[in-house]
Amino acid sequence: MHQKNKLWAGVFNEKTDVSVENFTASIHFDQALYQEDIACSIAHVKMLNKQKIIPANKQKKIIDALLKIKKKIEQGKMHFQNSQEDIHLAIESELFKLIGKDAGYLHTGRSRNDLVATDLRLYCLVSTRQIINQVVTLRKAIVEIAQEQKDTIFPGYTHLQSAQPVLLAHHLLAYESMFQRDTDRFMHAMDRANSMPLASGALAGSGYNFDRDFLAKELGFQSLTSNSMDAVSDRDFVIDLHSSIATCMVHLSRLSEEIIIWASKEFGLVSINDQYATGSSIMPQKKNPDVAELVRGKSARTIGNLVQILTLMKGLPLTYNRDLQEDKEPLFDSINTVINSLSITKGLLKALTFNKKTAANLAIGGYSLATDIADYLTIKGIPFRESHNIVGKIVQYCTKKNLLFSELSLDEYRQFSKKFNKDILDLDAMQSLKNRNLTGGTSPQQVQKALKKAEVQLNKLMKKN
Amino acid sequence: MHQKNKLWAGVFNEKTDVSVENFTASIHFDQALYQEDIACSIAHVKMLNKQKIIPANKQKKIIDALLKIKKKIEQGKMHFQNSQEDIHLAIESELFKLIGKDAGYLHTGRSRNDLVATDLRLYCLVSTRQIINQVVTLRKAIVEIAQEQKDTIFPGYTHLQSAQPVLLAHHLLAYESMFQRDTDRFMHAMDRANSMPLASGALAGSGYNFDRDFLAKELGFQSLTSNSMDAVSDRDFVIDLHSSIATCMVHLSRLSEEIIIWASKEFGLVSINDQYATGSSIMPQKKNPDVAELVRGKSARTIGNLVQILTLMKGLPLTYNRDLQEDKEPLFDSINTVINSLSITKGLLKALTFNKKTAANLAIGGYSLATDIADYLTIKGIPFRESHNIVGKIVQYCTKKNLLFSELSLDEYRQFSKKFNKDILDLDAMQSLKNRNLTGGTSPQQVQKALKKAEVQLNKLMKKN
Amino acid sequence: MHQKNKLWAGVFNEKTDVSVENFTASIHFDQALYQEDIACSIAHVKMLNKQKIIPANKQKKIIDALLKIKKKIEQGKMHFQNSQEDIHLAIESELFKLIGKDAGYLHTGRSRNDLVATDLRLYCLVSTRQIINQVVTLRKAIVEIAQEQKDTIFPGYTHLQSAQPVLLAHHLLAYESMFQRDTDRFMHAMDRANSMPLASGALAGSGYNFDRDFLAKELGFQSLTSNSMDAVSDRDFVIDLHSSIATCMVHLSRLSEEIIIWASKEFGLVSINDQYATGSSIMPQKKNPDVAELVRGKSARTIGNLVQILTLMKGLPLTYNRDLQEDKEPLFDSINTVINSLSITKGLLKALTFNKKTAANLAIGGYSLATDIADYLTIKGIPFRESHNIVGKIVQYCTKKNLLFSELSLDEYRQFSKKFNKDILDLDAMQSLKNRNLTGGTSPQQVQKALKKAEVQLNKLMKKN
Amino acid sequence: MHQKNKLWAGVFNEKTDVSVENFTASIHFDQALYQEDIACSIAHVKMLNKQKIIPANKQKKIIDALLKIKKKIEQGKMHFQNSQEDIHLAIESELFKLIGKDAGYLHTGRSRNDLVATDLRLYCLVSTRQIINQVVTLRKAIVEIAQEQKDTIFPGYTHLQSAQPVLLAHHLLAYESMFQRDTDRFMHAMDRANSMPLASGALAGSGYNFDRDFLAKELGFQSLTSNSMDAVSDRDFVIDLHSSIATCMVHLSRLSEEIIIWASKEFGLVSINDQYATGSSIMPQKKNPDVAELVRGKSARTIGNLVQILTLMKGLPLTYNRDLQEDKEPLFDSINTVINSLSITKGLLKALTFNKKTAANLAIGGYSLATDIADYLTIKGIPFRESHNIVGKIVQYCTKKNLLFSELSLDEYRQFSKKFNKDILDLDAMQSLKNRNLTGGTSPQQVQKALKKAEVQLNKLMKKN
Repeated sequence: MHQKNKLWAGVFNEKTDVSVENFTASIHFDQALYQEDIACSIAHVKMLNKQKIIPANKQKKIIDALLKIKKKIEQGKMHFQNSQEDIHLAIESELFKLIGKDAGYLHTGRSRNDLVATDLRLYCLVSTRQIINQVVTLRKAIVEIAQEQKDTIFPGYTHLQSAQPVLLAHHLLAYESMFQRDTDRFMHAMDRANSMPLASGALAGSGYNFDRDFLAKELGFQSLTSNSMDAVSDRDFVIDLHSSIATCMVHLSRLSEEIIIWASKEFGLVSINDQYATGSSIMPQKKNPDVAELVRGKSARTIGNLVQILTLMKGLPLTYNRDLQEDKEPLFDSINTVINSLSITKGLLKALTFNKKTAANLAIGGYSLATDIADYLTIKGIPFRESHNIVGKIVQYCTKKNLLFSELSLDEYRQFSKKFNKDILDLDAMQSLKNRNLTGGTSPQQVQKALKKAEVQLNKLMKKN
Repeated sequence: MHQKNKLWAGVFNEKTDVSVENFTASIHFDQALYQEDIACSIAHVKMLNKQKIIPANKQKKIIDALLKIKKKIEQGKMHFQNSQEDIHLAIESELFKLIGKDAGYLHTGRSRNDLVATDLRLYCLVSTRQIINQVVTLRKAIVEIAQEQKDTIFPGYTHLQSAQPVLLAHHLLAYESMFQRDTDRFMHAMDRANSMPLASGALAGSGYNFDRDFLAKELGFQSLTSNSMDAVSDRDFVIDLHSSIATCMVHLSRLSEEIIIWASKEFGLVSINDQYATGSSIMPQKKNPDVAELVRGKSARTIGNLVQILTLMKGLPLTYNRDLQEDKEPLFDSINTVINSLSITKGLLKALTFNKKTAANLAIGGYSLATDIADYLTIKGIPFRESHNIVGKIVQYCTKKNLLFSELSLDEYRQFSKKFNKDILDLDAMQSLKNRNLTGGTSPQQVQKALKKAEVQLNKLMKKN
Repeated sequence: MHQKNKLWAGVFNEKTDVSVENFTASIHFDQALYQEDIACSIAHVKMLNKQKIIPANKQKKIIDALLKIKKKIEQGKMHFQNSQEDIHLAIESELFKLIGKDAGYLHTGRSRNDLVATDLRLYCLVSTRQIINQVVTLRKAIVEIAQEQKDTIFPGYTHLQSAQPVLLAHHLLAYESMFQRDTDRFMHAMDRANSMPLASGALAGSGYNFDRDFLAKELGFQSLTSNSMDAVSDRDFVIDLHSSIATCMVHLSRLSEEIIIWASKEFGLVSINDQYATGSSIMPQKKNPDVAELVRGKSARTIGNLVQILTLMKGLPLTYNRDLQEDKEPLFDSINTVINSLSITKGLLKALTFNKKTAANLAIGGYSLATDIADYLTIKGIPFRESHNIVGKIVQYCTKKNLLFSELSLDEYRQFSKKFNKDILDLDAMQSLKNRNLTGGTSPQQVQKALKKAEVQLNKLMKKN
Repeated sequence: MHQKNKLWAGVFNEKTDVSVENFTASIHFDQALYQEDIACSIAHVKMLNKQKIIPANKQKKIIDALLKIKKKIEQGKMHFQNSQEDIHLAIESELFKLIGKDAGYLHTGRSRNDLVATDLRLYCLVSTRQIINQVVTLRKAIVEIAQEQKDTIFPGYTHLQSAQPVLLAHHLLAYESMFQRDTDRFMHAMDRANSMPLASGALAGSGYNFDRDFLAKELGFQSLTSNSMDAVSDRDFVIDLHSSIATCMVHLSRLSEEIIIWASKEFGLVSINDQYATGSSIMPQKKNPDVAELVRGKSARTIGNLVQILTLMKGLPLTYNRDLQEDKEPLFDSINTVINSLSITKGLLKALTFNKKTAANLAIGGYSLATDIADYLTIKGIPFRESHNIVGKIVQYCTKKNLLFSELSLDEYRQFSKKFNKDILDLDAMQSLKNRNLTGGTSPQQVQKALKKAEVQLNKLMKKN
């Protein structure tokens, strides 16, 4: 007995086992592609008519029905079932219900192989645009906060040890640099997704007189894929997006780590507004930086998802293999993760109060002006390696006597080198900052230039999107 | 103004931002732990009474209400919302609705930190038992098929090149060996999960006179965790389970790969029953091994999930950090994936028809008896390396003349070595099999022994579970 | 007692433990950066002189000595030891040996943090150029073979089941498409590496009047990094390169998998020349496709290496942390792996002999013209879904009667649909190919166009490099 | 022309291309297996004699020569070349040089497939024993330090926010718990490696009358592998070891993260002895916790290596494929990494000075006794949730007035609840610790019990190893 319910059942004598139906179904997650799938079908039907493969009245009939189906899905009235397998067949079945056998024209010259590749590329394009919007919005927030904090002196760390004073704005702009690269990376990811596989058929190209340029124009693709066998089995654009997301999440994880450290009582550099902190079910005194911790944690899943797609693709022979169905869930997960993480991080940054006084104190803690003193000597002609040694000894002297640099007299300085003059006593955090006055440096002047540049770039981007 | 809705709101002046509420909520996935959470609460309340911290009537009141809540959840009548944060607070809130302020006793001396660790360990224990059941069921199917095919000669490959003939049963038992190791690995994973963190409090241990042994007994744990700070931040048992699952899925991926290759027309070693094959939306002739492809593909996500948990844990300071909330979704995903993949693979194996004639032909293809011929010479005293060389030349001779070994005359053999006697002409696949008669070898006798042993083991396991 | 041997020892009272020295040393692998490190130092010294920080005679002295050191390393006469820590200090120490205390000027205003970041970017630029050369060389080989095989009909597979006939040239060009994307991806990776961190100092920018543009020009960088804190802690360019390499290796793994399958006796589509096959230590008859297997296997390590760098960076606070030292070994490993794999794959492809006759037979095996028959009916006005069903029945009919499509009479065809006319009997593999005559399709005409396009592109690329 | 140099060359007409020789060679890394390989060969030859396959004089001749080769390798006089391919053939070739054609008996009835699997298992057994020794040594150091610090009060954190006071010894014992699990995990990994594949031949079992039990006894294996096809292609024991190493390294990364945070000036909980700290090439004042950072960083490579082996194995058909050669380098790397990281961490811990005064102050910072106050009320009969709320208000009161709990009067306490009595004024860190007096809790009594238990266990382990 034939199984009537499968659109591909022609050659089969027995019904698919229900456990197989459930195991192989993707409808519970690929329904997310319904808009893209219907868009592809509408473009396809228009093209079929344009190429005189179906008449205008059938075109209209099919498109009208597709739009009805779209509405039905949007209204939550479509009840998808595993027996429908995937979004493509679910829509085709529904089309049969609505218009009968003319629905049979829809799949002319196309395969689920080229269709799903096209759907997924469209989905990536839309999603990446959303991601970029979130990145840009976060960058804008960073630049605004940096602008507000343009005079705040902040401790700069290497190895989580006081290193040199910086401007908080400079520190924040380090993240602007990262997210600028992310923006760029996501744009490249879009470029790579922006090529249309439609009409590649199952693997060898469609056997009809199709107009691929027309299809691409209808769907807004920049170009056509250039090889049908590659087109139906290529998921590089998924890898590229995963890789860009994982990198961006790593940046967010670094910012989160810093916020967590800054928010510790011991560092005391920021307070988190109640709206962005959470409490403890047992310890009544707690205000925890859970948001930052979760963002840090979520970076791990995007790395795992990247591994998934690479491992999935490894060693697959051409062309389409069903393994490829596994391309979607982790991708959807990573897209949602990065969008939510970017958005909440923006809110979190705005919910921070920077404790300027603490920051100023820590900025000169740990003898962090030592490099400036060494530079002072080198500018006066002492080889840097020697200056470094001299200052090492000054630090030891201060440590033993429990003195700050600012408490040293000129005489004490001159015990270590005769090159020291009175002006060494003027050295403070602000002087140290001003010393670093070259492109990318933390001097107030350079930071102002960097802020300007970032604002101009972001305004350009905001207009474009 | 206080935020009344948070159970931990004491110290907070402002309401949690709704975006934070949505971002940090885990209720949409940790509701899967409702049974474990309620079991923990019931045991806890009993213990509170036993230790005279609450009276018997309050114990009864709370437990009755908890059972009502359980029923409500099972009936799908509980509508979880993100504002409830997680399954623990959702249940506690519901308890307040049902019995008022006495609900406030529930959280005495415990924290979500030790509670969620306990819930998750219970969940892992239950799930791993289910996985083991599936592994054992699959093993039983493999052994049954191997028993049916105990005389089927099959081509053995190395490098996907004909190597030596084997018994199909021997080949199948290679997988029985893998899944036997998996069974063992899952059992160890259970042992490691089987330790109770409850009463570790937030991190330092509960500040009450609690009876942890009683709790453990109530909940069926084998032992107590031995350090409260470790207990609330340890997720080794999650890593162990992920790692065991990924290894098992790698085994399934290898079996899947073989089935895909065997089912190709070119190999032609198996046919897949219609119920376990799927068709093409465009190519009417296709019967595809989609099930095997999907299982192979799904192994990738379990590897990705393992990466997620390891990367998540890397570099986290003690004790609980909110990152740990990310331990659940990938774990649930891997558990479901392996259970479904084991189950469907069992069905798929049963849906295979082995083409014995093709197998027998391929088994002696590619001069696969060459090693036997070399062994023949070595047993007659020629150093193996020399025998190997001689047979290399015979193969070249045969290739040039387009002859099979079975078409060689004794004279031709003796052109290569005088050690050849008439009995060399008796060499065939069955003789080759019989030659390999040591533990683990493919001789019919050894394979019978292996089958027996497997059956005995499996029967023991089935009884135990 | 002071430890005299450390250049940074100023503040330290005790010698570094030898186990720490061994554990933290990177000299055994970062000596690979000696050329880049010396190039940076020469540029730096020139700039110091240009900015009047050191006089011309000291510039000359230092540069001459650096060139001597370079030569010494190239001649293998430099014996690096763990006590020298890393390539930067090893060279600085050697400089002290050669010219005494003037060597102390070298490190003026720079840090190992900005220096190693610059060295590594230069190294990535050089290596990526080498990778691109290998990709382009492989592409050229693919296109040449495709050109030679432009008339060879080949079986096209989906799900490793015969699907539709294709041209072998078309199949090969699918890989050309992948490697074209890889070329593009590597070029973007270069762009991202092509920004100079030098003069970012330890984290805050150098405290001298440096000319960064001059430095960049000397070293051939396109641009300057824009934030010093980001510059010393950013390893995005390493991630980008790892990700591009892993993607490229996944492509190679797919090609390898196909070659392995094709080379099986059962598929019999290719023979591998003796020079590119290997034998067995025990089975005298074996010729194994080890090269392809190793390439497939090696893709795994590049995925692992990508995981390493992402996991390494996750959650690191700004700016430099010693974790970053771990950026190099896996990177060097992935670079070598991809270069060797690309190169050997080119050789392997050239060592293949395609068995055209087998290919032509398999190309029409498994009723692979079924889609063409369905398309035939649809072009005559039958909705595709119906055509698909009709052809399904024809396939069943043929299977039952053990007939090929080519053995069907017109009458038999017409039992299934009256739309069949005499021309259906002309359908063969070549006709099927010709039917797929749209961009990216497998028709001989389209494949010729694609070959031309690839040749033009490759010639352009070869000229550029 | 034949290629004389390959031991497997029989069927080949052309020499292996030198690029293939270089690409496929493993001798540069698998020479690490020389001891295991020679041990296998000696056992094999003894068995060949025992089974009367070779006479006693040939046994002696071969074994004597093998021992000479071993010595030569140990003396660094063996110059391995890529043309020798791997350690097995390199030794066999050398044997031919030493004793001529009798060397040809060595490979009787064995294959590189079963040989390398055996070598690698032996190597894993030895290495894992070394790892366990390092883990146990580290545990001993932890317990000693914990014993020394058994009275030191330390701040306990959740979310890097002060939570509750703990004993430093308790905190350290959290790591003892982790490394105890690691010990257990490594022991299981050993059990799984402890099965002998030898005499599985290429895939089907050896074709001789071999005594596998004798071989296993000679080589010290606990059991025999039970299926030859599985035996030559199984790398579960490698995965198990990788997974155990990655988990252990994650534990080390957590400890490292804590040391880095503790060593920050802001936390100030530990100082690192000069011998275990490192300085800066530019900033004269710096003492950095590089060792801890490197250990944290190195955890990433072991995670990457685990991904490598899983991805490598995924989808490989039975039995041996050359991909498997890639099992070694990442394994060797992970083994070395974990051994070195364990060893250096032990040294680092011993090089820490805990700043008890700072610790004591931070331990009661951030109102960390709040839970105790809530517990106080609950023990007096107030539902915990209500107590939690009351204490929340006390914290707010204190924060507003800038008071510590210890500065509150009884009257002030009683404004919040009449349940407060005079004894609330006795609450301090030590009282809080004593309150947590259940198994696994931080009370001094419990910690003493835990220390005892750990010491007993470790002594037992030290005796065993």
